[in-house]
Amino acid sequence: MYEVEVKVPADHAEVRERLDALGADPVNAVEQEDTYYDAPHREFAETDEALRVRRESPEDADSFAELTYKGPLVEAESKTRREVETEVAEGEAAGDILAALGFDPAATVRKERERFALDGYTVTLDAVNGLGEFVEIETEVADEDAVEAAREEAFEILRELELDPEDQIRTSYLGLLLEAESEP
Amino acid sequence: MYEVEVKVPADHAEVRERLDALGADPVNAVEQEDTYYDAPHREFAETDEALRVRRESPEDADSFAELTYKGPLVEAESKTRREVETEVAEGEAAGDILAALGFDPAATVRKERERFALDGYTVTLDAVNGLGEFVEIETEVADEDAVEAAREEAFEILRELELDPEDQIRTSYLGLLLEAESEP
Repeated sequence: MYEVEVKVPADHAEVRERLDALGADPVNAVEQEDTYYDAPHREFAETDEALRVRRESPEDADSFAELTYKGPLVEAESKTRREVETEVAEGEAAGDILAALGFDPAATVRKERERFALDGYTVTLDAVNGLGEFVEIETEVADEDAVEAAREEAFEILRELELDPEDQIRTSYLGLLLEAESEP
Repeated sequence: MYEVEVKVPADHAEVRERLDALGADPVNAVEQEDTYYDAPHREFAETDEALRVRRESPEDADSFAELTYKGPLVEAESKTRREVETEVAEGEAAGDILAALGFDPAATVRKERERFALDGYTVTLDAVNGLGEFVEIETEVADEDAVEAAREEAFEILRELELDPEDQIRTSYLGLLLEAESEP
């Protein structure tokens, strides 16, 4: 599966009004704590990969953890990557296994995430600790040929939300946090 | 946790009679398929570590998968290792994540495993594809100081089963399989 995703900074209050007007369906609200790992044998910053343990606490369900690998970009414009993921029963044990193999925790991203469904896309309102508010438009497609069309439709949804595709940020929250930390 | 484990080759029919006579409790019967991975940055054969994805199909419950890291021996006599494990929702995805990170599947061990509880120990009857029948006596202890006493008691249980601690095999099934494969 290829994840097609566009992200812009946006004030959530205004976006909520547009989502309501467009008839978007609230999906859920969660807290996420994502720990990203450095590899012992590759520079993920250079290979453009990521390895993550996510602990997710939904508003109205049990917490769970996921182990995720993100491959290098296959389509730069929409940040499309190969993504492989599985839920794990014990997030802490998954982190311990990675650490034992020489993968070191590099940074942790904490956010409140609210999801809506709109026209087959997921619209996500993220309030990220230390970074502020963002909106993501996201879907998954089965093969690479379908990426371009999915990206164009994601841009169209941004416009319907009165947001500007030109504001697109291609840097991950992890990247933004590391940039913010490295500033004087 | 430290896993204390002793293993001998043994005819299951005779051991079953002794287990019955000693009043051991049947715990469960499962099929296990274990895939072991090579690391891209270490020789696990030299560092004496192992990384495994296990798919377990119990006789009377749903299948599941586990991701396990085994550290080097901390006590050679009883094959005691640090073990970190978590159940994973999708064994195939876990294997795909390892492969994407450069860990290659090295070998697969398939066995039928039957577990009994006896005097606080787990007695395991393993019928391993390509290797034959074995009996393992196993328990877990919280710290390294308790390992030696636990090992002595495991030997005592072997004797009660009319098996000889001198027959102990310290090589893993994976190691035995790789040895068997490398023979002419």
